[in-house]
Amino acid sequence: MTETDIEISQNTPLLPIKQIAERIGLSATDIDPYGHTKAKIHLPVTVDRPTKQKLVLVTSINPTPAGEGKSTVTVGLGDALTRQGKRTIIALREPSLGPVMGLKGGATGGGHAQVVPMEDINLHFTGDMHALTEAHDTLAALIDNHIQQGNELNLDPRQIVWKRVLDINDRELRNIVVGLGGRTSGEPRQDGFDITVASELMAVLCLSKDLPDLKHRVNQILIGYTYDRQPVYVRDLKVGGAITLLLKDALMPNLVQTLEHTPAIIHGGPFANIAHGCNSILATHTAMQLADYTVTEAGFGADLGGEKFMDITVPALGKTPDAVVVVATVRALKYNGGVAKGDLTQENVAALLKGAPNLERHVRGMQRYGVPVIVAINRFSSDTDSEISALLAYIQELGVTGYVTTVWADGGAGAIDLADAVVEATEESSQFVPLYNNQDSLTEKMTKIVTEIYGGQGVELSAKASRQLRTFAQNGWDNLPVCMAKTQYSLSDDPKLLGAPTGFTIHVREFAPRLGAGFIVALTGNVLTMPGLPKHPAALDMDIDETGKITGLF
Amino acid sequence: MTETDIEISQNTPLLPIKQIAERIGLSATDIDPYGHTKAKIHLPVTVDRPTKQKLVLVTSINPTPAGEGKSTVTVGLGDALTRQGKRTIIALREPSLGPVMGLKGGATGGGHAQVVPMEDINLHFTGDMHALTEAHDTLAALIDNHIQQGNELNLDPRQIVWKRVLDINDRELRNIVVGLGGRTSGEPRQDGFDITVASELMAVLCLSKDLPDLKHRVNQILIGYTYDRQPVYVRDLKVGGAITLLLKDALMPNLVQTLEHTPAIIHGGPFANIAHGCNSILATHTAMQLADYTVTEAGFGADLGGEKFMDITVPALGKTPDAVVVVATVRALKYNGGVAKGDLTQENVAALLKGAPNLERHVRGMQRYGVPVIVAINRFSSDTDSEISALLAYIQELGVTGYVTTVWADGGAGAIDLADAVVEATEESSQFVPLYNNQDSLTEKMTKIVTEIYGGQGVELSAKASRQLRTFAQNGWDNLPVCMAKTQYSLSDDPKLLGAPTGFTIHVREFAPRLGAGFIVALTGNVLTMPGLPKHPAALDMDIDETGKITGLF
Repeated sequence: MTETDIEISQNTPLLPIKQIAERIGLSATDIDPYGHTKAKIHLPVTVDRPTKQKLVLVTSINPTPAGEGKSTVTVGLGDALTRQGKRTIIALREPSLGPVMGLKGGATGGGHAQVVPMEDINLHFTGDMHALTEAHDTLAALIDNHIQQGNELNLDPRQIVWKRVLDINDRELRNIVVGLGGRTSGEPRQDGFDITVASELMAVLCLSKDLPDLKHRVNQILIGYTYDRQPVYVRDLKVGGAITLLLKDALMPNLVQTLEHTPAIIHGGPFANIAHGCNSILATHTAMQLADYTVTEAGFGADLGGEKFMDITVPALGKTPDAVVVVATVRALKYNGGVAKGDLTQENVAALLKGAPNLERHVRGMQRYGVPVIVAINRFSSDTDSEISALLAYIQELGVTGYVTTVWADGGAGAIDLADAVVEATEESSQFVPLYNNQDSLTEKMTKIVTEIYGGQGVELSAKASRQLRTFAQNGWDNLPVCMAKTQYSLSDDPKLLGAPTGFTIHVREFAPRLGAGFIVALTGNVLTMPGLPKHPAALDMDIDETGKITGLF
Repeated sequence: MTETDIEISQNTPLLPIKQIAERIGLSATDIDPYGHTKAKIHLPVTVDRPTKQKLVLVTSINPTPAGEGKSTVTVGLGDALTRQGKRTIIALREPSLGPVMGLKGGATGGGHAQVVPMEDINLHFTGDMHALTEAHDTLAALIDNHIQQGNELNLDPRQIVWKRVLDINDRELRNIVVGLGGRTSGEPRQDGFDITVASELMAVLCLSKDLPDLKHRVNQILIGYTYDRQPVYVRDLKVGGAITLLLKDALMPNLVQTLEHTPAIIHGGPFANIAHGCNSILATHTAMQLADYTVTEAGFGADLGGEKFMDITVPALGKTPDAVVVVATVRALKYNGGVAKGDLTQENVAALLKGAPNLERHVRGMQRYGVPVIVAINRFSSDTDSEISALLAYIQELGVTGYVTTVWADGGAGAIDLADAVVEATEESSQFVPLYNNQDSLTEKMTKIVTEIYGGQGVELSAKASRQLRTFAQNGWDNLPVCMAKTQYSLSDDPKLLGAPTGFTIHVREFAPRLGAGFIVALTGNVLTMPGLPKHPAALDMDIDETGKITGLF
């Protein structure tokens, strides 16, 4: 019988985290242990160690119900680089607990390519998500308390843009009325909860380069408007210090390991549909200070996470990727080619080739930035040799190289060719070409994203969105990058348009200024910022026995 | 200039937590470090070390705005015992972050009698509160999801008794309407948030003797009723395993130290007005396994925390206290004697003696249980010698001994006499006399509490409360202990009735069955389960500088 992810994780002996830290030049006083296999890294890292600082970005085609295994390939690639004698650190996002209780697994990789301890990372880990929830909702309470206690700032309760958050999939809290119960229990108004990873504070944490930058960004956050429509910021409330203080430990990157003991820094996890979808720049920066090869990941497909990595993360990080790996699977491309989920294990080369243009679009999008692009085929056991050959041939036609990886079954040994190719690619001289300039108008920025990355025709704004653009220009907010909030399932804003659609327009219904994070979110289609639980939540199958052994987590 | 609590804490070098653990016989593998000065203790503790297992309970008169310093005396007494060569561990509750952002300090003691690192303990500590919030609200989401997905259990949305929680003082969330937004966003219904420490899960965590007991108790929790008024429990939802799993780390007691390096176990912090107000029995039990003297504390006055320790905690703990210390201050007794808060620094022996019967009532209440009682006078610098002499004479009249302590200024050195007296008292042979039996009816239990502990005449039930009692009897819930939810400021249910009122009746407006915790809460007066923030919240004065140094926490 095949072991499950949690069984593989539980059955693999881990090295003490002190030993992992030592491997990358950190002493026991450079870290704060959290148990014996997790630690937070003290900032700033003062180790003076020359490194190559090669940065490898892993992204993928559009996710499908078939599964792509982007995190699994990221972990496997890191392990393969380690096996090839390269000093490597993996930088990943932290999982959100809400979806873990719902139906999702895999934020920690899978099979023999996992970051561990898998249970801890998937549950409370080192408390970063909880600190964000606490900080976010403390700010919300301080805003409502300000109104209740006299409202000196003249805040309009109907125009508060700072909602509340929980790290829980709870549709019941999406749309609520708060402040009922009379004079002593606040001012009645509409409100709602988002999931914590959708909090602007998550994006702020992930884009901050140090503690002062974090405080600066927190103070910049827009919380609402006055009755006469003037913007009000956290700094106006004078609570930027308190909110930052609640995030002081959360700002420190977390160190763990892979099943093969490659060091992994797991830190920050903004939603890639509503936010920028990359781990913290402090995680990536710390990894680059300590390793020759840093392998990091961008959430969902190259259209969402990849684009945002290039246009939002790179400027904050001050470093462009030296190579990009686009992960694809035969199954997912067949799904993009119209095969139903239940039929994916049947060989179907025609459907594979019909769906393959989705891969091409993502490869071209990444190549647009002037960086070397490699394709990794994450092979599933049901993939036939004909399918694999057909896909490899298709990739060769595109003028890029593709490598079959089997990291789920084989760990790092399943990605040796890919690792060698990645090392070689990072030695190529390349010139990063930004997609847009900050001086471009927001509409110009969006148009470039849609035409050059998504393969669409352009953007169309709702009346509200157009109105907002005029206000933003008045407020001087239009020189910020755009963060597209779009379905992850399609290159368009219609989740059902698979493959590589053309001729489509992206409809922007509303903008959300995220001035602390430093971007303007463009909301397209129906992007949910608070997921719900399914009919049979994963929680129903979870258990813990009297020895503390956990089952049902995946 | 006098140092503030946070400055004293920041300026005192701590010992590595591994060293503190070693002092009590725990090796590096018996603990999970959280940073270098905090740890969680692995359960069960397998150290086979003969100890005296003497248990000292510290409680106090009714709290007043004048301040009593119960935690400060608890810490100082522990340090004094250590100075006297006694192997001592202090067991305390964990502070709640909500009030820390509001106006409260002092859950970690004060001056030179503090548990440290004070900032960490007052902020996220080891994440226990956050784990409770997550577990509580995950359960809430699972309940609403059950209703949304077909409601197989026939749950009546109007009769859900499981609210939501946050560890934040947020009056705006007290009374809310959830589930708005149409068919896909849940079922509209009334709901509300309590503060996390008021969650039944907190009481459950604190009364569980091990992981299986925790899971058993979680499964027993009442979540609501069906349309035909049948009770529905967590076990019916089949999510007891998932909720317990979220609490697995939170169940492990936390080890820290005092400024004088006495080991302190800080774990669990249920509200003493709504719940039972004592640290976890695992904390106390672990301390007793490792030390000869365990000093623990019961929240608010002897009428609330003290009574609940004796009637709720003791049966779960399986151990009765060997001595009880009742903390009083000259200031608080003068306040009880009618002096306004602004005039407390002026000598006023007459008012002191007028308020002193409040102390007598608490002493008699504790003596009722057949255990030795000692009074500790926590001296403030404004107390005059005449006041102290008058109070000592009054205490002597009561037939008990009183000791002046100066632990705020002097640390353990300020409580040597008290420590010696406590050691002596614990050697007395005493026979614990329970206040009531489980077989007594709920009304008999409440009557005994009111007449024998509060000094009142009896209880009066609202129509609703009477109706509930009949249902509880039908459901077989009436053999549980009663947990009185009463104002902490008075022995009666009227916060303005100071001193030692007589002839009063306690009005029970409603009962709340807490079947996981194993008690029935009797709600009297206007007990708030979600506090609000004041006009000038403490958060406004907090800050963190670029080196991570915190100011404004107290």
